[in-house]
Parts: sequence; C-alpha cells; structure tokens
Amino acid sequence: MTTLERLVQHLSRLPGIGKKSASRIAYFILKSDQHFAEQLGEEIAQLKRRIRQCSICGNFTEEDPCRICTDPGRDRSIVCVVEQSEDVLTIEQTNEYRGLFHVLSGVISPLDGVGPKDLTIDKLMQRLSDGRIEEVIIATNPTVEGDATAMYLLQLLAGEGVEVSRLASGLPVGGDLEYADRLTLARSIRGRISLSGP
Amino acid sequence: MTTLERLVQHLSRLPGIGKKSASRIAYFILKSDQHFAEQLGEEIAQLKRRIRQCSICGNFTEEDPCRICTDPGRDRSIVCVVEQSEDVLTIEQTNEYRGLFHVLSGVISPLDGVGPKDLTIDKLMQRLSDGRIEEVIIATNPTVEGDATAMYLLQLLAGEGVEVSRLASGLPVGGDLEYADRLTLARSIRGRISLSGP
Repeated sequence: MTTLERLVQHLSRLPGIGKKSASRIAYFILKSDQHFAEQLGEEIAQLKRRIRQCSICGNFTEEDPCRICTDPGRDRSIVCVVEQSEDVLTIEQTNEYRGLFHVLSGVISPLDGVGPKDLTIDKLMQRLSDGRIEEVIIATNPTVEGDATAMYLLQLLAGEGVEVSRLASGLPVGGDLEYADRLTLARSIRGRISLSGP
Repeated sequence: MTTLERLVQHLSRLPGIGKKSASRIAYFILKSDQHFAEQLGEEIAQLKRRIRQCSICGNFTEEDPCRICTDPGRDRSIVCVVEQSEDVLTIEQTNEYRGLFHVLSGVISPLDGVGPKDLTIDKLMQRLSDGRIEEVIIATNPTVEGDATAMYLLQLLAGEGVEVSRLASGLPVGGDLEYADRLTLARSIRGRISLSGP
C-alpha cells in the first residue's frame, strides 16, 4: 500500500468522510503548501496529548479545571447537563446561557450496555452537595435514550432541593408545520406556551 | 484560540469540510485512540515529503519514475492524457485501461491565466518523439476548459502520426433520460453508437 493509499484509508475512518472525499482531501493536502500539511498533521497528532477532560465538569479542555468552570463571570447557581463535550460548544454558540456545564459522557442505553454507573452522574451529585447550585437544566438529546436519561436524573434530583428543567422540544425555528414529524408536533402541542399571560 | 479551535479552523480549509464537519472530526479524533491520531497526523505531515511528481508522466508517486511508467506489463503504445493526478487513480479503478498516462497538471483556462505553456504539453510532445506511442486518448473533463484543451492537443498532435481519441460523452450508466441535462443529451445523440454493425 502506498503512502497515499494509507492516508486515504485512515481519512475515510473519520465521520462523514467516504472514500471519495478522503481521496479528494489527500490530493488537496498534497497540493497545499508544506507548512499547512505539517501544521495540520502536528495538530492532529498532538491533540490527544494536549487535551484532557476537566476534573469538575468533564468537558474537554487544555487546562484543568476548564475555562468555563474557572470563569468568575459565569452564573454558578445553574448547571446544564449535556451528553457530550460537543454539546457544550453548541450551547455556548447560542450565547443564551451563562451558567456552568456538566458532561455526562454518554446516555443511559441498556441496548449498548451503558448504565447510570458508566456516566458521570455521581460527580454531578457531588457537585450539587455544597448547595450552591439552584437549578439543573437537563439538555440531553430529545431521543429515547436522552429522554430516559433525563427521567432518571429527574428522579435522582427530586430530593436535592434544586429546580430541574429540560430543554423545550417542539417545532424548529423557520420550520414548517407541514414538514414536522408527528412526534415533534405532538410535543410542541403538549408544551405549548401561553401568550395571553398568567 | 484553543488547540481544538485551531484544529477545527484548519480542518475546515479541507475540501468538502464545513465548520460543523470539522468540529465533528476534531471530536472524533479526540475520542479515538492515541495511536490512530498520531498515525494520521504523521501521515499528513509527511505526505508532501514522501510524494513527488513522476519525471516522465507527472503523476504523484513515491518512486521516480512512477509504478505505472516502469510497469513492464503495460501497453507502451498508448497514452492517456488527464488533467490531474486524481484522474489517473479514477481511470485505474475502472480496470479498463492498461496503457500509460500523462498528467497535464491543469487545463487551458485563459480566465485563470493558465495557458498551454503552464501545462506539461511540451513533455508530452517529447514523449511522442521516439515514435513508440501510437495512440493518445484525451481524457480531460467534458467541461469548457477540458474541451478547449482537448481541441488544442488535437491540433498539436495532428502532424505527429498518432491516432487521437477522446473519452465518449453521453448519458451516465444507470441514468435517466428525463433527468439528463440538455447538453449531455445532445452529446449522446451526436455521439450515438451504431448497433446494427457496419
């Protein structure tokens, strides 16, 4: 196998990259300047060495504790529980949330052999024990596993004296009733928001 | 900028990779095993050092001359002229061609400031000079630039005593008349193949 073939094979293991894209990328790198190729290669090789998980929230970070956990400007009374590190980034990009995070590192999924013990739920309970956290937003995905995990957390948090909320599920902004699936539409009806005030 | 952000930025410069895919790939690498990340990074960084262009045909190769040029099993009387190295791979995958290749490293494109002198056309004429090559297949893309380059080559090769052919253009196999664009359909009519024999 040639160097190029080996690279194509490795690239096509990346998510969303098929064999054609992999070969296109390989040729692009081949035609790009040496500096770009070396920098990209170096960054990929070093990534896992430079980045670890935050010992408090479980988010990927270069410094431990992570920037969010140490940021004095953030609201420490509220914690948003997400499935994985990527979700932290996604929520951060909305600029809608200024509290802390907690990364579960997965969801409860009996079919995949993942139970509550495999997640960082114990750590979350520890974080709650000092009484400073007043609200927990459960931001697991609106999937069967995400919902099951949310229900499990809700039961667990019931006795902790914190407010528990879940991200609203419903029609996507810019979406069309006609194209919404039945489950989403049903949820958006159940979770309808009063416009006339209390 | 964090290590992760920098990697995402560099990955999103690759063809076909947007910001979302780049971030998905970065997290995938972060969660993959260290060996995979290091190997992939190393391969990318080293790629341009290990691979050069064949001094005969212009194809990317680790050894010079390349494997195809030195392969004693190949038909040396026929040469297929392609725009770029990728096309060699694509044609090789069809298992339909056993001759030699010549990579032009581009197409004639006045708008981009690319003229015949910027391509490896001189080298092609040199290769023809020993009289061993009997047929030249022009396999440039069926685009305006590819067609213009093919016409230019045809004129140049007219006095060389070699047969010159061009890849057939027409309906893609498995395609549907209804969805073919007008130009393609027109070409497939003009280039129709007699089934009744001579």
